[in-house]
Amino acid sequence: MMDATDDRLLDNLAAVVGDRHVIAPGHDQDAYVVDWRGRYRGQARAVVKPGSTQEVAGVVKLCAERDIAVVPQGGNTGMCGAATPDSGPRNVVIRLDRMRRIRNVSPLANSITVEAGCILAEIQAAAAAADRYFPLSLGAEGSCQIGGNISTNAGGTAVLRYGPTRELVLGLEAVLPDGRVFNGLRALRKDNTGYDLKQLFIGAEGTLGIITAAVLKLFAPRRSSALALLKLQDVEQALQIMQRLRGTVGDRLASLEIMSRGQIEVIAETIPHVTIPFALDTPWYLIVELTDALAGVDLHAPLEAVLAQAFEDGVVQDAIVASSEAQAKAIWAVRHSVSEGNKRSGYVVSHDSAVPLERQAAFASNVERRIMAAVPHARVVMHGHIGDGNIHIVAILDHARCRDAKQTAALVREINEIVDDETAAQGGAISAEHGIGITNRGRLARVTDPLEIKLMMQIKALLDPADIMNPGKIFADD
Amino acid sequence: MMDATDDRLLDNLAAVVGDRHVIAPGHDQDAYVVDWRGRYRGQARAVVKPGSTQEVAGVVKLCAERDIAVVPQGGNTGMCGAATPDSGPRNVVIRLDRMRRIRNVSPLANSITVEAGCILAEIQAAAAAADRYFPLSLGAEGSCQIGGNISTNAGGTAVLRYGPTRELVLGLEAVLPDGRVFNGLRALRKDNTGYDLKQLFIGAEGTLGIITAAVLKLFAPRRSSALALLKLQDVEQALQIMQRLRGTVGDRLASLEIMSRGQIEVIAETIPHVTIPFALDTPWYLIVELTDALAGVDLHAPLEAVLAQAFEDGVVQDAIVASSEAQAKAIWAVRHSVSEGNKRSGYVVSHDSAVPLERQAAFASNVERRIMAAVPHARVVMHGHIGDGNIHIVAILDHARCRDAKQTAALVREINEIVDDETAAQGGAISAEHGIGITNRGRLARVTDPLEIKLMMQIKALLDPADIMNPGKIFADD
Repeated sequence: MMDATDDRLLDNLAAVVGDRHVIAPGHDQDAYVVDWRGRYRGQARAVVKPGSTQEVAGVVKLCAERDIAVVPQGGNTGMCGAATPDSGPRNVVIRLDRMRRIRNVSPLANSITVEAGCILAEIQAAAAAADRYFPLSLGAEGSCQIGGNISTNAGGTAVLRYGPTRELVLGLEAVLPDGRVFNGLRALRKDNTGYDLKQLFIGAEGTLGIITAAVLKLFAPRRSSALALLKLQDVEQALQIMQRLRGTVGDRLASLEIMSRGQIEVIAETIPHVTIPFALDTPWYLIVELTDALAGVDLHAPLEAVLAQAFEDGVVQDAIVASSEAQAKAIWAVRHSVSEGNKRSGYVVSHDSAVPLERQAAFASNVERRIMAAVPHARVVMHGHIGDGNIHIVAILDHARCRDAKQTAALVREINEIVDDETAAQGGAISAEHGIGITNRGRLARVTDPLEIKLMMQIKALLDPADIMNPGKIFADD
Repeated sequence: MMDATDDRLLDNLAAVVGDRHVIAPGHDQDAYVVDWRGRYRGQARAVVKPGSTQEVAGVVKLCAERDIAVVPQGGNTGMCGAATPDSGPRNVVIRLDRMRRIRNVSPLANSITVEAGCILAEIQAAAAAADRYFPLSLGAEGSCQIGGNISTNAGGTAVLRYGPTRELVLGLEAVLPDGRVFNGLRALRKDNTGYDLKQLFIGAEGTLGIITAAVLKLFAPRRSSALALLKLQDVEQALQIMQRLRGTVGDRLASLEIMSRGQIEVIAETIPHVTIPFALDTPWYLIVELTDALAGVDLHAPLEAVLAQAFEDGVVQDAIVASSEAQAKAIWAVRHSVSEGNKRSGYVVSHDSAVPLERQAAFASNVERRIMAAVPHARVVMHGHIGDGNIHIVAILDHARCRDAKQTAALVREINEIVDDETAAQGGAISAEHGIGITNRGRLARVTDPLEIKLMMQIKALLDPADIMNPGKIFADD
């Protein structure tokens, strides 16, 4: 695949970013052309690591002039393959690793200005060092980059209180598909001077430009907290608890994570070092966490008051209020073991639908019933962000039954169709937080209004007429 | 101006919305073709009041086929003339008054689904009736419509805590310039299925489509509060106070409204029935309000602790903590008299710039100094949302010196140029919350990056190639 043309391309790229920051084919590109779960393998004529916005712009211009596709990549931790190049001969991967500067932290403005390659955990730490809190939090936070978080509008465990990444972005800088720089890096809390263009780049999965820097919101640190594990009969009870807590403590309600009994059983079976610190004697389990910016606030009193009333009203079967930090951690450890437990347990077909809150109970039970009818050997477990309308439904298949790739693909398709069908029926969306990428692009049309898809494609064509930026992502080819 | 063509147009419109809901020229159109401040007067071939999204779509289709411009209008309370037709022969005004249904209130999902013509105060009341709080609040709330609030991304007094209108919108329905209906009326807290198209319509001032319905966020009601009036030496002290309060009480800090001494003197001079319940002996005054969702929370203790420390550190000159609801109301009454006081005091040239928080002190003093140098007879007073970076700088001119329209226009231009210049120098935006409309369209290019304006115009051309939707707003003709 290397020829004289590529030599020139590599030389030209090196002239922009420096020799050391261009990785040619055959030079250990695997970390960049394969997604972290190993589901997609592409190829790249070069992986480049620009060190500044100007260098990103230079690389994009070079590629645009040669009709070479640009694939932006952060920490390569995405769930849907949006940062992986395809297997065609047209790709240059742009890694943002070297743009890792935290440019400014302002406890006054409650904002932080970061470059796209900053690791999420480093941003959280920089905020904490300034006695502030950056709420975005998710499993990959030790290696994911903020540019990728913004490009995928990442969710995580703090959405209930602080919203998805979109709501945390005050300003944005991005390199457009022709190499021009959109400079929306403003730390303004209010700006009504025309259309809010930065919104286009948030959640666009790198298809409209490469995010190079951002101004993000910070919040007061959390100095008090209270946590309980609730045992519930059904999903409706979890919603009842949420409504009561929200009406009473308002935004102190920080987390609300549900798990089905089957989900916890999977963890108990597969991860010996995680102890389940409660008996498995009801169908559903709910972690409730309250937090407060003020130190020394008694959050246990309002939590216990709501729970006592709920118990009296038959809305909760049982509740364990954590009496120590250690007990709270032990309960969270169960929730954090979900992905690993499922992976150890079999071939995982996981889903990320969002539905209106009040439809979650019907959605979950319909999907479970239909999957069990269609694939009786599947194990269906559930966990997720009940306050966001985002229960992850996971079908686990026995590896022994998934040896034939074609048969497995057919099973996955069948399960996906059930989920898509029920998602559409409940007025939902097939992706709440993971995005579309490669994984879900064929499913978008089954649930999303054709007019919306058409508008999206028109905007894509407007900003990127040559289809340079991350082609093949979000939109299906046909 | 009425001719056979117009007869046919009126008949066709009446066929869509009903005879009673079409107002022809000469039939008391004034309330619709003149903005509420009487600064702009246009004309319309018809004012129509559709009763449903389908009727809005029908009217827009009719107009699109005839190359007639459509001007969406809510309560006609906007600050920049965005809802007023121009004086050309090409306009039909669409009023949303009849689409006034609150379709759903969900205390569970913390959301409310409303039609575009709902009055803001009615939405607040419907939320309160369900034991929830809809935070958008502004002077015109008794007559402005939510469709207009969303189209202008309205600000108001609750932005500090809850963000501008954009952050309150979960879902949106809009009629596109060709009459197709964008159905994004989803009550989903998370949705990562492609580009977030609804963002385009928020703050677009009706230039990309007509918003017909929305799903909005609700919050827990505010059951405890504490208020103080602070006397300050300068703007920097207000920022110091903000930083200390935010670090301590977090989001309990609900309002932070600053007024210059001159601003309060104007009120004292012109509005006899408003008592100023404090002495005018420092240059700046700051209203601080804390609120909490929990009933019976002592917010006075943390407020007084922060103020005591600030007093000790010389960050505040004096503070009055309101000891009763009546005292709090008396202090708010001063703030609410600002617009009326200024209007009674002379010819008002007001500004709405946003600048980064830490630049506000420099911005305010530079602008004041330069206006006083250029127009020595002007009186410069200030008030606004210091926590949003949005101090309104108001130049009041003696009516006696504004008898000549041309001379006055020249003075206004000169003052605007100073404000624009300083706004650009501080990295700000010329409109924080009022928008562009007609008033500011000529100023946009002085502060906003040409690339951004170009992208906006390309998006406008993409969605509205025939320039049917509210032409002449936001963008200058040349």
